[in-house]
Amino acid sequence: MEAIKTRAAVAWGPGQPLSIEEIDLLPPRRGEVLVRIVATGVCHTDAFTLSGRDPEGKFPIILGHEGGGIVEALGEGVTSVEVGDHVIPLYTPECGQCKFCKSGKTNLCQAIRATQGQGLMPDGTTRFSKGGTPVYHYMGTSTFSEYTVIPEIALAKISREAPLEKVCLLGCGVTTGLGAVANTAKVKAGDTVAVFGLGGIGLAVIIGAVLAKAGRILAIDINPEKFEIARQLGATDVVNPKDYDKPIQDVIVEMTGGGVDFSFECIGNVKVMRSALECCHKGWGESVIIGVAGAGEEICTRPFQLVTGRVWRGSAFGGVKGRTELPRYVQRYLDGEFELDTFITHTMGLEDINKAFDLMHEGKSIRTVIHFNK
Amino acid sequence: MEAIKTRAAVAWGPGQPLSIEEIDLLPPRRGEVLVRIVATGVCHTDAFTLSGRDPEGKFPIILGHEGGGIVEALGEGVTSVEVGDHVIPLYTPECGQCKFCKSGKTNLCQAIRATQGQGLMPDGTTRFSKGGTPVYHYMGTSTFSEYTVIPEIALAKISREAPLEKVCLLGCGVTTGLGAVANTAKVKAGDTVAVFGLGGIGLAVIIGAVLAKAGRILAIDINPEKFEIARQLGATDVVNPKDYDKPIQDVIVEMTGGGVDFSFECIGNVKVMRSALECCHKGWGESVIIGVAGAGEEICTRPFQLVTGRVWRGSAFGGVKGRTELPRYVQRYLDGEFELDTFITHTMGLEDINKAFDLMHEGKSIRTVIHFNK
Repeated sequence: MEAIKTRAAVAWGPGQPLSIEEIDLLPPRRGEVLVRIVATGVCHTDAFTLSGRDPEGKFPIILGHEGGGIVEALGEGVTSVEVGDHVIPLYTPECGQCKFCKSGKTNLCQAIRATQGQGLMPDGTTRFSKGGTPVYHYMGTSTFSEYTVIPEIALAKISREAPLEKVCLLGCGVTTGLGAVANTAKVKAGDTVAVFGLGGIGLAVIIGAVLAKAGRILAIDINPEKFEIARQLGATDVVNPKDYDKPIQDVIVEMTGGGVDFSFECIGNVKVMRSALECCHKGWGESVIIGVAGAGEEICTRPFQLVTGRVWRGSAFGGVKGRTELPRYVQRYLDGEFELDTFITHTMGLEDINKAFDLMHEGKSIRTVIHFNK
Repeated sequence: MEAIKTRAAVAWGPGQPLSIEEIDLLPPRRGEVLVRIVATGVCHTDAFTLSGRDPEGKFPIILGHEGGGIVEALGEGVTSVEVGDHVIPLYTPECGQCKFCKSGKTNLCQAIRATQGQGLMPDGTTRFSKGGTPVYHYMGTSTFSEYTVIPEIALAKISREAPLEKVCLLGCGVTTGLGAVANTAKVKAGDTVAVFGLGGIGLAVIIGAVLAKAGRILAIDINPEKFEIARQLGATDVVNPKDYDKPIQDVIVEMTGGGVDFSFECIGNVKVMRSALECCHKGWGESVIIGVAGAGEEICTRPFQLVTGRVWRGSAFGGVKGRTELPRYVQRYLDGEFELDTFITHTMGLEDINKAFDLMHEGKSIRTVIHFNK
């Protein structure tokens, strides 16, 4: 197989608009797969890396990590997918062999962590280039390119019945939210839940809390335009911290007669992470950090908060093991257990991708889905 | 019943030596019990409050919270203990009625929390006084007085066969350590455990880890004199942070090939709390804060530590529900499951109690037990 050309949105430097252009893509090597991306979501994490604040962001780079695609070609030794399979790329792979996969305690497969963090394929090189200049991979997925090369262990094979332009959202935000509720927090029927930040992940947490039959779901955001959709999805209370003079944790503790059973931080703001912990009920409340904070930022609290029974934890990709568990999430969607249309406020072609970033920054979209064939 | 005189060690002000004198004690009121303390341990928390750094410390006060005694008289309505019963006073009571007791999720009974924190009995007054000046209670126990009045819900009735001058240590430090391992962390056979601080609680954590069949137990202290006893109790590795130039968490991650399954902070130092969290294994390691930090001090870390699977929690009195569970701890001691003699490095009479504080500050004692009849 020869090198091919692919249409991609290239980030040439931090803070610059993405540039839509044809770049070169080498064929998949051993253990790698060529995937044609049909659709991809645009997520805050892409914007975070584009801003230059992500210490792992290396430019030029092809961003994008919330995609759905079809297998086009296999590298040597690939056996678990075949040409024509529908797949969701996984920024958290699942090799099944490493200490982490074998532990049964975490989804954080570390098999290719080092190279992935450097924007490289597992063999230490890039498949993307432009005029001979290497262009880096992103999160092992780079779904802002119509064709992309992905390690076999980073592909979840899903039902061919699933619309890729919808279930691409299960590649990040929606699964992260649903999984954080079900796997990380293990919310139970009747529990009181607080959700900080009503972006895609926060809304998915609300859906997850409804599926878990939470008794009360508090949706918290400083943008009141998010409240209507939060209520539609099942939030029982909406809270705008700007409406109060005192710390929002004190407001929530009062509203709930002692605090919530579980809270979720879905923003990446270390001050909100503290509020999310401290609004938890003494004795048993647990707070789950989902949002990604800026480099070097720290969370703080008085240790008394923990000694009196609160628990502070985090969640990455909702604790979901991508290859073994994500296909079930897709099936649950197909079975009508939850819907995805609410998340998709905009769709557009690749050439408009910078508009998708603008909509996100302006708080006007939940998710824009890029359709490569549009 | 009339007011009585009792011999007590009075803390008249922060930082002052305790003064041994006779003070006045009113009889127990409704729901209260008069207890004759036979023996009491001297714990770092007593020293912490005596130092003036405890925001809840109100002077003059009778300290002491690690006692063993015998019921001498009952206030109105008391039905669960009778005169002659052997009891351990509980600074964490168990009313069985409040939201916390009923939750089944915590031992942090809040029935009398407000008054206890103010050094008062549940009716808002003190039983102790001297020349008409009220003397405050401490942690609802005040075991540095030969006679003390304690709420019924703050007494665990134990086997009369248990030597009170030993099992008094189950009133705080030893139970705290054993319970943190078994109830809070739920250490399993083969787990790797790190213990920061080899005072009474840290040593009890080691015993708890041995009982849980932990595979490897790292004992960490900057005082190498503690290492011999830690090894005797079952520590497999001893680590002195002063022997290394790099952060101790990095040392432990290297020593253990990725980090520990569980860590315990048994000092009350917020920087050590951070090390204890960060030496945990990515993906699943859990850190338990047991030590009590100074007023206003805060713990900090990068949220990435939690998002990548570490869990930060705390433990108070080892998560043990005092009235229902502590009698079993006493029975396990009587059955020879663990011993207490190792903890008791010194015994003395009440008149020497200031020497017990000196020994503790000098790092020369694990526990001094005060015998009232010595």
